[in-house]
Amino acid sequence: MNAPAALLWRHLRVFQVWGSNTDVGKTIFSTALCKAAAKHHSHEKVAFLKPVSTGAPHEADSSHMRTYAPKIANDTLFQYEVACSPHSAAKVSGQAVPTDSAVLAEIRSHAARRAAVGPGWLFIETAGGVHSPGPSGTPQADLYAPMRVPALLVGDSKLGGISQTLAAYESLKLRGQDVEAIMLFQDDQYENHLYLQDYFKASDVPVYTISKPPQRIANDQAEHDSMAAYYERLSSDPSMSDLLANLDKRSEDRINRLETMNQKATNTIWYPFTQQKLLSASQITTIDSAHGDFFQVLSPAATSDQALLQPAFDGSASWWTQGLGHGNSKLTLAASYAAGRYGHVMFASSVHEPALALAETLLENMRNPRLTRVFYSDNGSTGCEVATKMALRAARLRYGWSAKDKVGILGLRGSYHGDTMGAMDCSEPGVFNEKVEWYTGKGHWLDFPTVRCLEGRWQVDVPEALQADLGCGGETFESLDEVFRLDERIGSAIHKAYEDHILRELQRLVSRGHKFGALMLEPVVLGAGGMILADPLFQRTLVEVVRSSSSQLFSASTQHSPPDDGPSDTDWSGLPVIFDEVFVGLYRLGRFSAASLLGVHPDISVHAKLLTGGLVPLCATLASESIFAAFGSDDKSDALLHGHSYTAHPVGCQVALESLREMNSMHASGDWSWAWSQSQQQEPAQRRLRVAEEAPLVWSLWSSDFVDQVSHMAARVEGLWALGSVLAITLRDGAGSGYKSTAAADLQARLRSGSDDGSWTAHTRVLGNVFYIMASQKTNEATVRGLEKLIVKALTE
Amino acid sequence: MNAPAALLWRHLRVFQVWGSNTDVGKTIFSTALCKAAAKHHSHEKVAFLKPVSTGAPHEADSSHMRTYAPKIANDTLFQYEVACSPHSAAKVSGQAVPTDSAVLAEIRSHAARRAAVGPGWLFIETAGGVHSPGPSGTPQADLYAPMRVPALLVGDSKLGGISQTLAAYESLKLRGQDVEAIMLFQDDQYENHLYLQDYFKASDVPVYTISKPPQRIANDQAEHDSMAAYYERLSSDPSMSDLLANLDKRSEDRINRLETMNQKATNTIWYPFTQQKLLSASQITTIDSAHGDFFQVLSPAATSDQALLQPAFDGSASWWTQGLGHGNSKLTLAASYAAGRYGHVMFASSVHEPALALAETLLENMRNPRLTRVFYSDNGSTGCEVATKMALRAARLRYGWSAKDKVGILGLRGSYHGDTMGAMDCSEPGVFNEKVEWYTGKGHWLDFPTVRCLEGRWQVDVPEALQADLGCGGETFESLDEVFRLDERIGSAIHKAYEDHILRELQRLVSRGHKFGALMLEPVVLGAGGMILADPLFQRTLVEVVRSSSSQLFSASTQHSPPDDGPSDTDWSGLPVIFDEVFVGLYRLGRFSAASLLGVHPDISVHAKLLTGGLVPLCATLASESIFAAFGSDDKSDALLHGHSYTAHPVGCQVALESLREMNSMHASGDWSWAWSQSQQQEPAQRRLRVAEEAPLVWSLWSSDFVDQVSHMAARVEGLWALGSVLAITLRDGAGSGYKSTAAADLQARLRSGSDDGSWTAHTRVLGNVFYIMASQKTNEATVRGLEKLIVKALTE
Repeated sequence: MNAPAALLWRHLRVFQVWGSNTDVGKTIFSTALCKAAAKHHSHEKVAFLKPVSTGAPHEADSSHMRTYAPKIANDTLFQYEVACSPHSAAKVSGQAVPTDSAVLAEIRSHAARRAAVGPGWLFIETAGGVHSPGPSGTPQADLYAPMRVPALLVGDSKLGGISQTLAAYESLKLRGQDVEAIMLFQDDQYENHLYLQDYFKASDVPVYTISKPPQRIANDQAEHDSMAAYYERLSSDPSMSDLLANLDKRSEDRINRLETMNQKATNTIWYPFTQQKLLSASQITTIDSAHGDFFQVLSPAATSDQALLQPAFDGSASWWTQGLGHGNSKLTLAASYAAGRYGHVMFASSVHEPALALAETLLENMRNPRLTRVFYSDNGSTGCEVATKMALRAARLRYGWSAKDKVGILGLRGSYHGDTMGAMDCSEPGVFNEKVEWYTGKGHWLDFPTVRCLEGRWQVDVPEALQADLGCGGETFESLDEVFRLDERIGSAIHKAYEDHILRELQRLVSRGHKFGALMLEPVVLGAGGMILADPLFQRTLVEVVRSSSSQLFSASTQHSPPDDGPSDTDWSGLPVIFDEVFVGLYRLGRFSAASLLGVHPDISVHAKLLTGGLVPLCATLASESIFAAFGSDDKSDALLHGHSYTAHPVGCQVALESLREMNSMHASGDWSWAWSQSQQQEPAQRRLRVAEEAPLVWSLWSSDFVDQVSHMAARVEGLWALGSVLAITLRDGAGSGYKSTAAADLQARLRSGSDDGSWTAHTRVLGNVFYIMASQKTNEATVRGLEKLIVKALTE
Repeated sequence: MNAPAALLWRHLRVFQVWGSNTDVGKTIFSTALCKAAAKHHSHEKVAFLKPVSTGAPHEADSSHMRTYAPKIANDTLFQYEVACSPHSAAKVSGQAVPTDSAVLAEIRSHAARRAAVGPGWLFIETAGGVHSPGPSGTPQADLYAPMRVPALLVGDSKLGGISQTLAAYESLKLRGQDVEAIMLFQDDQYENHLYLQDYFKASDVPVYTISKPPQRIANDQAEHDSMAAYYERLSSDPSMSDLLANLDKRSEDRINRLETMNQKATNTIWYPFTQQKLLSASQITTIDSAHGDFFQVLSPAATSDQALLQPAFDGSASWWTQGLGHGNSKLTLAASYAAGRYGHVMFASSVHEPALALAETLLENMRNPRLTRVFYSDNGSTGCEVATKMALRAARLRYGWSAKDKVGILGLRGSYHGDTMGAMDCSEPGVFNEKVEWYTGKGHWLDFPTVRCLEGRWQVDVPEALQADLGCGGETFESLDEVFRLDERIGSAIHKAYEDHILRELQRLVSRGHKFGALMLEPVVLGAGGMILADPLFQRTLVEVVRSSSSQLFSASTQHSPPDDGPSDTDWSGLPVIFDEVFVGLYRLGRFSAASLLGVHPDISVHAKLLTGGLVPLCATLASESIFAAFGSDDKSDALLHGHSYTAHPVGCQVALESLREMNSMHASGDWSWAWSQSQQQEPAQRRLRVAEEAPLVWSLWSSDFVDQVSHMAARVEGLWALGSVLAITLRDGAGSGYKSTAAADLQARLRSGSDDGSWTAHTRVLGNVFYIMASQKTNEATVRGLEKLIVKALTE
């Protein structure tokens, strides 16, 4: 696999020359820059690189450079004879068309070799305009973005050139490129440079001008002499020396800044969920940029000729948010569109297209006939608070309780719903909240059986506390798929035992005076609580028992006699059921909704993280009409009194729409079919033929062979599971488990040391003795296999 | 004043033709479109408009149209003789250069006249490329964005044209433009159309091609015949009829969608803070887009020839967030850059440039020597929870309390800090929270004197409950400035009375067993509690009394003897002081920090809303090192256990950096100096000469003459105040005041009915009997004066 790499060395100042149009003078500026660098830094090596070139070699840009700057090292990586756009030229060349990552890898290798020869400069010239396609057809602006090479934009000095220059500039900025300077010819008729100098003043982008090259002359020797004289004049043009000095300084500033950021962060940042007394500056990861699945991370110890930036796989999917790759241009453009069309618009009593369209899309895709309403908030934690406010109100009205009654949550032990105080109160006391002032766990949290793979078998483990009551210690299955075949498991002995146990527990709790206002679950996987895979049969049974219990059960501790449940089959019954799908939903576990793995329709469903594909915060709490109705009244203050200023901010909604559209489209076109068949024997091409309808209920990007292999490492592994893009390995830890454990930190450290060839590493987060890693929805098979190898190696070392 | 207006009529299908480069055939496509519309819709009027044209009239684009489509109505609004970019041509023309809003107003008037003549089409042709400057120098993409006219982009079929087309497309999208179709010539050498068709398939943008026009012929008549024949051929080209049918359908779809959105929203959206039983679909504002200070709002009752969209001033600054105008291209580009460079990157133990730079910028600009740390969260409510967690921990460690001890907030009556449950608990019971399950106000909230202007005088009103204790009913001042001259007021009788009263209160509360963990204030103005202007002397005195009280005072109810306060003068003493500047900070009240109006340095300061200029959610909680130190330990779980997935998301941080940079730059260059001098007699030019150093402590965009005038309307007005961009008027209401009052709704309704000429309205929010309105930081003097007139008229009707 080729991880995309950003180019940065102490020794080598690299710049990329972009054109705002064809025929604006890229090669002339490149030649002048190379000559100026060679003149002003005569002890350094100056090199020119044309990664992709089309047309006859003697007419190519590198040929011009060879003619007028013969001492400059001069290379071309991909040369195509036909004089047209590289994607067309590559197609008709008869050669294999290089992939984008192959092009990037070639450039990286070339630059690394330049860095190895000592201090120097490298100017990389692009082909055509900023969006002219590379060999594969990817526009260069996207193709080269991961390199993060500072850009020099050659402006257009001709009629209409202001527009071309600004548009090209924006397309580069949209890819996170730093435009270090704009260079253009001085044209005294159109004076575009005057406008551009003024325009870019506020953005601190300097605009340099040089005189135009002489008119072309038909006579070759005369043309040569005339151009040579022109370059000679340029060599004493103060614009060129200023520009070069500026580039030199900016290069140095960039590295200095990167190298001091961790120390500055140590002094000014208060990190989330971090004991900073135990975090030295050197342990802080300095992230220059991120593209696709990879961060570009500073290697502070790099010597002058070693790469300062290294790709690190984003193994926590940036706290579980990332789904469509970092720096995804489609998401960026969606955000830009909404920002340009609206900025933010206040949402109370108003409606705008992205908010309405997103609500419609979510309700439609959930395929849950109960859900009819969408409430927007800012993140999973606030969305869970909203869900709680919704459920508690509905329950207390039905059961005749007052707002002051102590009404709690029925949940599972180890649940976690967020860090705001109300969300914390939905979980039982634990390391995340027991030291937090004002925390009061409100409710009761049941023990439950869990699922893991060990020694090639899938086990449902019943916790000790329940074994007597359930009359067994668990069950064993051949595959995870079997565990999720709930229709087959319903009616089994263990199902009946679950039913009886849950009902007894409820009766016991209510008889002790407990009042419950909601059943609140993370379906299938409890995330922050330690990546616990719950037995889906237990979760489904819990919902069914709660729903089929009479209202009298839950109101037993009150005097008031509640009305019977409504007649509609979308009304809630027993308790409002909240599913917190913040982590597990939206394809994280392989399906749009994790609830569908249980075959359950919750009354309230909370969605965030992947909702916006890893770009900006947004949460949607979906609810049924029967929950919504509990807030309807003639009194304004009976409304759901919650609402953030940026509620339903158009940027977030538009990004979410694009993110859902893209993931749904990937699903429909079978982009994950390589993972649907877990048989590694089949050829990838065959595996890709499958269509969305054939997607299995349970599938994972992580291969079953790999899971099987790790499950046999019993000396170090207590068990593991893989589902959708998530892999979680529980490690044996002599010192005990839990959040405070450091057992998984070893494995994490080994992944941080990277691949065999040192070309990439993996950045992960751990939860005590649980090591987890997750891919994005865009991660390709080669990357997943590479990670699997790395993990196996780390576990067997 | 000219409010920017979007163009939309039932009768008139309007499209704007943009060029992805010069010389790509805009005029030919415009001509072909006009002819096709005339052919396929023969009973409708087709018109062509060139708003700005340069060059000799007989060579102009409109002349081509007149020649080959003589029956098409054909107008030019601004014609300049010199054949160059409009901004240069306008400058040398000797004519007054029209402002952007004048250009938009002319186009709007012209289109309105077209709409009045019956069903028809209007094609508006831009000049040059998408960013070619208009007469004032503003790039057309920005200039025309508020019109929201669906765009037709003429692609570039020449070498390099793929790049030019994609870049132009992105620049239009970045302005929230809907590109309905791309049209280009079929060029069989470069085949750009094939690439573009493939590229735009996923975005649902159709790409249409037509054959190239014939070669130019020197002979005028032959050229004419050749072009006429070309247009004749085009008239039966299915591409043209398909395109036109598609445009017709998209026009209809757009209006249909807009007209059904409010009903759909009624059925699918759960609105924040809204009693939906009292909200009919017709009361929902459908917002098509927003630019500058104005929403573009659907007028559902518009007849066929009336405008469907009307500008409405965003008088709540979109729930107090908006500062730099809707659809601000600079903020959009900042967001795009960060999205392209990073997407989101997980923040725990890592650092990226926008987060660090923003932390540094905030700490520097606050000029509060106590603040050294920045903690990021998602919104003001979560940021206030973070502040509370910080303060409670610091206080309970110093005072030796346990996490289970009941430790509360000391605040002011009417405070409000957000809707998450923890933030709600920081406020006393009231209409926002008393019906909310799980709400338990934790602390005590003091009565305090307030400030208002009535009958031309500024009064400090002491609430009845305090009058006996303070020994007076208040004070009167000549100006608001006098009220804020705290150094002069300190030492006065009322100051001494404040001191004594506060100390007595504290002693009384602690003696009753109250434990306090923080003094938490919204400095100067209590926002959601009803736009209450607090007497700044009282707030300052409260902080000073709390800080100068011995630790023994606050720990009196415990056994534990706390250590003395630390030696550093940046340590907190008495209680950690939290300032919630979410609403009042970042120039909302005229100054970077509202704390500076009090001359107080809080230990913790919370910032959101304007932080991101009205684009995406982000909050920063700033804290002192002495607060931070309370969480340092060798135990991981002693850390501040809070952190959202999107903590310090790069998009938000980058937008905040740009927003702060822009506001600081406006302040420094005296952009608000017209408001600094409240004397309306001076000429605007003179008033603008002032520099930032001369900015008065207290100033307002709302003129003192206007405030004075309203303050004399005693029959309807109980009092008002204006500070920074905010104006708040307390209205007399026989039925009582408070959140449930509908007193201000009348005034609100009158503003909604709009200006005398019907060209704009104002959209505002009310808080019970308090009517408030705020401008953005970009609102110009003419708009403020227009609003003042509207308010005076509404109050006197």
